[in-house]
Amino acid sequence: MNSYFRPAVDAMAGYIPGEQPKPGTSIIKLNTNENPYPPSPAVTAALHNLDGEFLRRYPNPFANDFRQAISDVLGVPLNWVIAGNGSDEILTMIVRSCAETQRKVVYPTPTYVLYKTLAEIQAAEVVEIPYGENNRLPIEALIEANGAVTFVASPNSPSGHVVANDDLRQLAANLKGVLLIDEAYVDFANENALSLVSEFENVLISRTLSKGYSLAGLRLGFGIANPKLLEGLFKVKESYNIDAIACTIGAAAMRDQAYKNECAEKVKASRAKLAIDLKQLGFEVPDSQTNFLFVTPPNGNAEAIYLALKERGILVRYFKQPGIDRKLRITVGTDAQNQTLIEALIHLV
Amino acid sequence: MNSYFRPAVDAMAGYIPGEQPKPGTSIIKLNTNENPYPPSPAVTAALHNLDGEFLRRYPNPFANDFRQAISDVLGVPLNWVIAGNGSDEILTMIVRSCAETQRKVVYPTPTYVLYKTLAEIQAAEVVEIPYGENNRLPIEALIEANGAVTFVASPNSPSGHVVANDDLRQLAANLKGVLLIDEAYVDFANENALSLVSEFENVLISRTLSKGYSLAGLRLGFGIANPKLLEGLFKVKESYNIDAIACTIGAAAMRDQAYKNECAEKVKASRAKLAIDLKQLGFEVPDSQTNFLFVTPPNGNAEAIYLALKERGILVRYFKQPGIDRKLRITVGTDAQNQTLIEALIHLV
Repeated sequence: MNSYFRPAVDAMAGYIPGEQPKPGTSIIKLNTNENPYPPSPAVTAALHNLDGEFLRRYPNPFANDFRQAISDVLGVPLNWVIAGNGSDEILTMIVRSCAETQRKVVYPTPTYVLYKTLAEIQAAEVVEIPYGENNRLPIEALIEANGAVTFVASPNSPSGHVVANDDLRQLAANLKGVLLIDEAYVDFANENALSLVSEFENVLISRTLSKGYSLAGLRLGFGIANPKLLEGLFKVKESYNIDAIACTIGAAAMRDQAYKNECAEKVKASRAKLAIDLKQLGFEVPDSQTNFLFVTPPNGNAEAIYLALKERGILVRYFKQPGIDRKLRITVGTDAQNQTLIEALIHLV
Repeated sequence: MNSYFRPAVDAMAGYIPGEQPKPGTSIIKLNTNENPYPPSPAVTAALHNLDGEFLRRYPNPFANDFRQAISDVLGVPLNWVIAGNGSDEILTMIVRSCAETQRKVVYPTPTYVLYKTLAEIQAAEVVEIPYGENNRLPIEALIEANGAVTFVASPNSPSGHVVANDDLRQLAANLKGVLLIDEAYVDFANENALSLVSEFENVLISRTLSKGYSLAGLRLGFGIANPKLLEGLFKVKESYNIDAIACTIGAAAMRDQAYKNECAEKVKASRAKLAIDLKQLGFEVPDSQTNFLFVTPPNGNAEAIYLALKERGILVRYFKQPGIDRKLRITVGTDAQNQTLIEALIHLV
């Protein structure tokens, strides 16, 4: 044995998360799509109400308090819900339970790069199919690719567009494998695909508390699907994947929908304003149903702008990848942060 | 495709965690080896010091504050440490990075049943080799089995015994694959195998904050090994596997060694007293270097005693498995809890 590891693990590079400056650094951080507003006051109250004794015992292995909150808020039965250590863990569970050598993981590109990493860990074959003009979903090609798992992020990152439910429906109806609809950014969108889980046994929807609920630090997400589909996920999940604190304060956050919606409305208003300001500077700014904009600077000099902004203490996301290397993904900040960004950009375009 | 899942996942049953009564239930819980004392006051202080803003951002992807605390306390370099969502996740990472079809996962039995579940998820071949008389480690057979991963829990559960470092050394030196030494219960033992990681590149030690640090609810553990061995684990870990809260209060718990040691000493004293009391009732009570005792009732009627105790609100662990089905695993509680147990047992043996 030359290596301790599986050949697939030796061959892969591993996922590299977005830059995270140290807490306390005075940086305007518009690179990893965090919510600019703090989480619900109900979260802080629940946090400060916890005592040490509560942590002494093992948590509920299924995070039932959190699942019950989701069930109540979204009107889905408890056993249609599974909790994950971030929605990333929901993605891990579906790939780990369905994909392996000789099976395919399929998705339209560009999209969330973690799908590829997860497929590589399983030594599954990766099939990437580019989106068509105007973000047209390549339905026929996705069906033909015959994935054990097909991922569609909607709203998608980095593009910011939503895939129409009719397209998702056509896809789900014709796939033999699982269709995971990644709704990480759904709280900033005008529509969602939740109704599809009751229509199709092979549809799994994943959501996160990282974006809409301002809880990226908590690592909490969930999946919704027919219990028959969740069965395989429960088998491969860590036995106690959600800690007692996350379960409790995640439930508190879910139950405060009014606060979450209020923050989302503020972000959407700031998004509209930022889009106008960027267009006035000559940027190409497609519509977004997320908390970020995926924009093309007038001269296409995205990398130079990214670096110059970084020098000025403003982080945005630049992807050095063919096809999107003339664009920037900019998280919508507070109006004040966005204004600082615009003032910096005036000197750079 | 008849099933969405991999054949290996369809074939497996999934891990079933120990019984967890609802918080608030007035039960004496001696079945899952939780510490009877609350976590360090430093943990509660750190918890109440957290604000919502702290949770808004993604955590450090490598849980560096927590790793730094481990590095300082144990005197190992930072890059020899990896954090896990419970030490269970360290076990997951090593199996996921090293084991697959045509590769073996090997361990002496009886031991922690999760090893088998993790191997099954990877479709790896499982080789179980029984411990010899007086818990003799079957070194030759373990070497011959040639595992991609070999697990040895030390102290072991349910037996409670420690494997001598000389035996572990002989094993590590002769294995081509990885030797994971699971030290979940090390805080109650008189010795540990930490020095082996610098002697052998293929040794990975896993530890948890669930037992010694009274933080079962927090899901926090860590692995220590040569950075070359950790490389594969970092590739397969969830990108942000440790949440910001766990990272912060886990570091606080690690840095309060005095409190942890004080609780461990109390548990060890109670363990000695409980062993004497059980022996007086006719139980066979082997030495234990953990926070539990693995005992044989005078009539071997373990299941009946387990059920009768449960009826009286006292939970202990009974394993309905050949070879150990005449024994009970009893977590050491407070002296008062142990006394209640003894009083109940007087009527049952």
